Amino acid sequence: MEQTKFLLDEKEMPTAWYNIQMDLDRPLPPVIHPGTQQPISPADLAPLFPMELIMQEAAVGPYAARYIDIPEEVQEAYRLYRPTPLIRARRLEKALGTPAQIYFKYEGVSPVGSHKPNTAIPQAYYNKKQGTKRLATETGAGQWGSALAFACRLFDLECKVYMVNISYQQKPYRRILMETYGAQIVASPSNDTNAGRKFRTQDANHPGSLGLAISEAVEDAMTHQPDTKYSLGSVLNHVLMHQTVIGEEALKQMEKAGAYPDVVIGCVGGGSNFGGIALPFVREKIKNGKKTRIVAVEPTAAPSLTKGIYTYDFGDTAQTIPLVKMHTLGSSFIPAPIHAGGLRYHGVSPIISRLYDDGVIEATAVKQNAVFDAAVQFTRAEGILPAPESAHAIRVAIDEALRAKAAGENKVILFNLSGHGHFDLGGYQQYLNGELQDYEYPAEEVKKAVAALPQIA
Amino acid sequence: MEQTKFLLDEKEMPTAWYNIQMDLDRPLPPVIHPGTQQPISPADLAPLFPMELIMQEAAVGPYAARYIDIPEEVQEAYRLYRPTPLIRARRLEKALGTPAQIYFKYEGVSPVGSHKPNTAIPQAYYNKKQGTKRLATETGAGQWGSALAFACRLFDLECKVYMVNISYQQKPYRRILMETYGAQIVASPSNDTNAGRKFRTQDANHPGSLGLAISEAVEDAMTHQPDTKYSLGSVLNHVLMHQTVIGEEALKQMEKAGAYPDVVIGCVGGGSNFGGIALPFVREKIKNGKKTRIVAVEPTAAPSLTKGIYTYDFGDTAQTIPLVKMHTLGSSFIPAPIHAGGLRYHGVSPIISRLYDDGVIEATAVKQNAVFDAAVQFTRAEGILPAPESAHAIRVAIDEALRAKAAGENKVILFNLSGHGHFDLGGYQQYLNGELQDYEYPAEEVKKAVAALPQIA
Repeated sequence: MEQTKFLLDEKEMPTAWYNIQMDLDRPLPPVIHPGTQQPISPADLAPLFPMELIMQEAAVGPYAARYIDIPEEVQEAYRLYRPTPLIRARRLEKALGTPAQIYFKYEGVSPVGSHKPNTAIPQAYYNKKQGTKRLATETGAGQWGSALAFACRLFDLECKVYMVNISYQQKPYRRILMETYGAQIVASPSNDTNAGRKFRTQDANHPGSLGLAISEAVEDAMTHQPDTKYSLGSVLNHVLMHQTVIGEEALKQMEKAGAYPDVVIGCVGGGSNFGGIALPFVREKIKNGKKTRIVAVEPTAAPSLTKGIYTYDFGDTAQTIPLVKMHTLGSSFIPAPIHAGGLRYHGVSPIISRLYDDGVIEATAVKQNAVFDAAVQFTRAEGILPAPESAHAIRVAIDEALRAKAAGENKVILFNLSGHGHFDLGGYQQYLNGELQDYEYPAEEVKKAVAALPQIA
Repeated sequence: MEQTKFLLDEKEMPTAWYNIQMDLDRPLPPVIHPGTQQPISPADLAPLFPMELIMQEAAVGPYAARYIDIPEEVQEAYRLYRPTPLIRARRLEKALGTPAQIYFKYEGVSPVGSHKPNTAIPQAYYNKKQGTKRLATETGAGQWGSALAFACRLFDLECKVYMVNISYQQKPYRRILMETYGAQIVASPSNDTNAGRKFRTQDANHPGSLGLAISEAVEDAMTHQPDTKYSLGSVLNHVLMHQTVIGEEALKQMEKAGAYPDVVIGCVGGGSNFGGIALPFVREKIKNGKKTRIVAVEPTAAPSLTKGIYTYDFGDTAQTIPLVKMHTLGSSFIPAPIHAGGLRYHGVSPIISRLYDDGVIEATAVKQNAVFDAAVQFTRAEGILPAPESAHAIRVAIDEALRAKAAGENKVILFNLSGHGHFDLGGYQQYLNGELQDYEYPAEEVKKAVAALPQIA
């Protein structure tokens, strides 16, 4: 019998997150206040986040440690769907005729269908613990909003989601899922904030953007103190730390499979699923001498690593939230309408940006049609229909397997299948009809946008 | 640590199906030819099914055995998603404040989101083995069509799906999923068969029905001999036998949980998911003296067991396919438009009908709003959004748990969560908006419809 799935018992689930900040050879650059252009203090962030998440973000106090115990209440909620399976894609290997072994970690088994609850759950937990009554957030395609709606329900918090208007119109199922969890959803720009009303006055049918929805959610939290806080689903250090359960599980599961990956692959938008699978393998590389290549895959339509510039930028388009040093296309970037909504962001997590700048990880950009080619090939071999975001990783995994075939190499490939595509079938239809466009964002635009940013010393 | 999930390794996956026909105290009544009204022979079925499935249906030849070895090729395909988890619904128990233990077997982890591949895979396998090139089938809401499209892809068979027109219009995502697997889908009634053209001539926008789609798929197979055969996703003996992997796994997993169910619950349409979970527990009851209650749950809109009559009826509305003795509402039954499309059928599997008639199993009927009440309560407790079909089982599981609470009983409840509801969010929206209707099918209509059937001695 050829083993296909490598499972962990609940008692083998990691009980600690990995805090890579302790293993960096120098600290991350400070986060900068948008008004003073000076490093922010924990107090500046206190209206938005509970203190334990702020300390995790900065790796200070009890969180100045390599391993952070996962609270029992969070572990209990994780056990609703974790540990997730590691699967060997034997049928895909056969279809490709490759000598390579292809493994994928499958995060689509979570109730909302992606890795996002891995951080939504602890964020809801720490907020509840500090007395927060209500969380406000933004969502694009709806993966993050669903995860936070689910987590808020588990910890009995109210949840308000500002959903980018065009997605609100085009993805009613994601909205209904959030409502089924009990969350309140509005199309962004909305009438519920000053930022929203301003844009609605200009255009009653404004399509919205993730940057604008962030501005609305942050304003909502700031104007509903002290009961409401804000929650972000990617980019930040504490978010990536929570996601390291993915990679920690994968390490144990690869051991059960009797193999160690030569290459680890994840798609990258803000960086949370990529960081989740990659950071524990980065530790093994920088601390324990493993030779693994670690590859971040982004769309050519939003090539923050491959064409972006490593500099200080804002997290939102309205340029009202703190600046971080990251690879960025410039916060004024307007992404093309690719189906991988979760990758349509101008920047990348500061941790991922640093690792890329230091040459610890690689990056590559792929086009939309090539991504859907890979998604359909994967679906037809393995059955699982991937999210368009995750299919970016599949594209590169297949390319690596084909290179191994050409070279006759028995390479071991691991990628993160961060979510399923059950709510993304509109994109598949366009692909099957031959109607999908490719987009390539020009480097000149990046230079112009970045030149317009404030210059932080 | 309170264990939540009870998993099996791949090597613990059942290697045999359970053939309950060998354990019945008398054989099932014969299947009757619609023309001669005499018992059919295997040769009569040979244009529609491969010989190994015909022998499984009749439990003859090598299949006159209690346990039927699962071919290695089928086991290998099962391992893409099996064994499936058994989960203890601890949060639901807490929300209900019940002393009862509630377990559910979760079949929604299959690539297409339901238990249907458990039989689609062996059906595709046996067809391939006999040289079939192409399978034709029907689908209502799309669960079965997706499963057969997936299975045909695994065994490199062409697949043609006649999809009930109203579902084809309302559920484009299910259609696109099937197309992604490479199947060809047409709205039924279609222009591709005489049966379809006849109804389209009467009404170009005919909404279609499952019975009509069956007639089209059967005609397609009959007119594309010898390359094409027909495939059915429920009702038949071999289908239920393939589904017993669910219950066999659940038996092992309940043992790991250190408990044995006092009551086993499944929703029933044609009877395949119910039979899948129930039949191994029926064996333990009738052969090994276990006291378990086994409860089939149907919608009040299609109450085949609770209001149907145990008599010979056709499987399709056009009354062209063989007659079986079953609990039926009459094959002229037109089901109300409930969201649980998989339960909108006039009859029930002959095996389930016999067990009900003999008093081995119980049945109950529940209303649509009560079902969605339970579905939303479950989603908010456990995170998983159930299919409306599966939510019928949840309704009764919750009712049992509340009765246990009132009586102070530490009852053990097991139900089958046969699929997720990612493609059924339209129904959730109607429920959340208070727009869902309840339907109760009147017993007088059943009597009239059954009186019009041919009387088989």
